[in-house]
Amino acid sequence: MNTPGYVIGADIGGGSARVGAVLSNGAIIARVRVDSSPRSGYKPLVKRVRAAIERIIATQKAQPISMCVACAGAVDFSRNVISSSPNFPGWRDVPLAEDLARGMGFPLFLENDANAAAFGEGWIGAAKGWPDFAMLTLGTGVGGGIVLGGSVYRGFNGMAGEFGHLPVSAADMKCGCGRTGCLETTASAFGVARLAARILDTKQGAALRRSCRGAREMVDAKMVADLARSGDLACRAIMRGAGAELGEALGALALSLGLSRFVIGGGMAGAFDLLKGPMRKGALARAYTLNTRSLRIVQARLGDDAGLLGAARVALDAVK
Amino acid sequence: MNTPGYVIGADIGGGSARVGAVLSNGAIIARVRVDSSPRSGYKPLVKRVRAAIERIIATQKAQPISMCVACAGAVDFSRNVISSSPNFPGWRDVPLAEDLARGMGFPLFLENDANAAAFGEGWIGAAKGWPDFAMLTLGTGVGGGIVLGGSVYRGFNGMAGEFGHLPVSAADMKCGCGRTGCLETTASAFGVARLAARILDTKQGAALRRSCRGAREMVDAKMVADLARSGDLACRAIMRGAGAELGEALGALALSLGLSRFVIGGGMAGAFDLLKGPMRKGALARAYTLNTRSLRIVQARLGDDAGLLGAARVALDAVK
Repeated sequence: MNTPGYVIGADIGGGSARVGAVLSNGAIIARVRVDSSPRSGYKPLVKRVRAAIERIIATQKAQPISMCVACAGAVDFSRNVISSSPNFPGWRDVPLAEDLARGMGFPLFLENDANAAAFGEGWIGAAKGWPDFAMLTLGTGVGGGIVLGGSVYRGFNGMAGEFGHLPVSAADMKCGCGRTGCLETTASAFGVARLAARILDTKQGAALRRSCRGAREMVDAKMVADLARSGDLACRAIMRGAGAELGEALGALALSLGLSRFVIGGGMAGAFDLLKGPMRKGALARAYTLNTRSLRIVQARLGDDAGLLGAARVALDAVK
Repeated sequence: MNTPGYVIGADIGGGSARVGAVLSNGAIIARVRVDSSPRSGYKPLVKRVRAAIERIIATQKAQPISMCVACAGAVDFSRNVISSSPNFPGWRDVPLAEDLARGMGFPLFLENDANAAAFGEGWIGAAKGWPDFAMLTLGTGVGGGIVLGGSVYRGFNGMAGEFGHLPVSAADMKCGCGRTGCLETTASAFGVARLAARILDTKQGAALRRSCRGAREMVDAKMVADLARSGDLACRAIMRGAGAELGEALGALALSLGLSRFVIGGGMAGAFDLLKGPMRKGALARAYTLNTRSLRIVQARLGDDAGLLGAARVALDAVK
C-alpha cells in the first residue's frame, strides 16, 4: 500500500476524542486531542471534533484522502449513522459522519471503536500478520473486536465482538446489564476492584487495607495487580480468577468461531504478566480444539492509539 | 447457477454414510446409503463408500462434475485430510479425499459435517436467503456450523461452530469433555435424558415412571418432550431449562459474532415447539444487541439430508 498523502483517523471516547493524520505506513504525523465528554451535548461535540479536523488539515497544508471516525456503539453502515452508543446515551441514529464531513470535501466513514482497535493491532500492532483473531479490551468493562480474513468482522449490527456479557461459569456477581455470569463482572478493571472490595474488611484484605490507607474508593485493578506481584495471596487469587474467566471466554470463542489467536488490550492489559498463565490454562481446558501450539495470546502494543490507527486503516481501505 | 450435470454429496456419520447425486437446483436424483460404523475399520469403510459412489455413477450413466464428503471432525483443507474425528477415534490426518477419489476422474473435497448441514439449510432449507446465521444441531451432543456472507465459515481448524461446549451459567453437570457448565449437558438429547433420570425416583418423576414402565433406559428426550406437551410439570421444566440454556448460548453468539439468525436442527429439534419460547427469552435476556424484531430462530427443514445437500453445494461452488 503506497497511498500518497494522508488520511485522518479519529477515536471518540467517553472522555476525550483523539484525531490524527496518518500515513499509509501507519505513521501518525500530527495529532489533536479534544474533550468529548457526553455532558456538553452533541452539537458542541461535533463542533470541537470539526475544529480538531481543521487544525490537522492546517498542519498538513493539504486535504486528507479520507477519514474514519471510531466510536463506541452500534454503527448502521447502510446509512452511515450511529444507531446507539453506551458513551452517549441520548444518541439515536445520529448522522455523525454527515455532520462531521459537511463541507469538508472528503469521504468520512464510521466504525465501532473496539473493532477499530482490533483492526489497528492487526495492521501494525501485536497481531500484525494475523488474518484471523479476536481482541479483548479490558477496561471499565470488557469490549472487543474480531478480524477475519484481514478485515473487520462487524456482524449484523456493526458491533460484533461484544465479549463483556459472554456467560462464564464461575461468575456469580450481578452485572450492570442486569444478568449474572457476565465475563466483565470478574475480568474488567471494575470487576477486579469490586472483587477486592468484597474482601477488604476480611483477614485476607489486610494488604489491600494497608495499600489504600482506609480510602476504600482508591482500591482499583492496578492496586490489586501490584499487590499480587508483591506476593499477596488474596490479590493473586483475584487476578488468577480474572485470568481463568478470560481464558474460559477465549475457549468459547475458539470453539464457536474457530479462532486460536487473541490480543488482550485496554487498561487491565497492564496485568498481562499475571493474567497470561491462567488465561492459557482456562482456554485450553475449555476448548478441545486448541492446543498449546495453536493457541496464541499476546498483549496489545498500540495502547490508546489502537482505535485511531484502526480508523485510519479503515479510511485507507475505503478509498483503495 | 445452472451447472449442467450433477455433483455427488456424501455425509459420513458414525452409523451410516449417505451418498447422493444432486442437481444444481438441489434436487437429489439418486441416493445410496451404506454402513459406516467405525468398528469395521478405515479400509472397509473406504471400500463401501467407493462402491456407493460407483453405484450412483452407474445410475446416472455419466461422471459427476465434482464431489464433496462431509464428515464429523477437524478438516485440514490445505492438505485435504481429516485431522481427527470424534466418530472415528483412530483417525489421524486421514487422506479420505485421496482414498475415495483415486482413479475416479473428478475432484473430491472434504467438509465438516455440521458446517455442511448449516450450508445446506442456507442453500435450500430453513435459512434460505440468509447470508449470515448459525445452525445448532441438537443430537446426542450439540454441534453446529456458521455461515457468513453466504459461505461456510470454517475457522482456523476447519471446525468452527463447536457450540456444545460453550459455557452456560446454570449448567452444573459434568460433561463428557471433563468440564462442567457445557451447553450440551442440558441442551442435547443426552442431557435431557440425564436430567430426566435425575428425577425418575422422585415424586416429580411419576409421569416418567409410568411412561417408561420401569424400563429406565427407555427414558429419552422424546419421552420428556411428549410428557411436557401433555402437561407434566417436571418434564415441562426440563424442556424449558434446555431452551433457556440454548437461548443463553444464542445470546452469546449474538454478542460475540453479531449474529441474529439461528437454525435449530438435529433430533431434538422435534421439540422446537417447546424450546422456541424459552430460547427467544434467554437470547434476548443475554444479548442487549438483539431485539424481538432482529432475532430469528427457526427449525431446520432438511432433516437428515442437510449434510448431504450442503456437501453437494460445496462441490458445486468448488468448480464454479
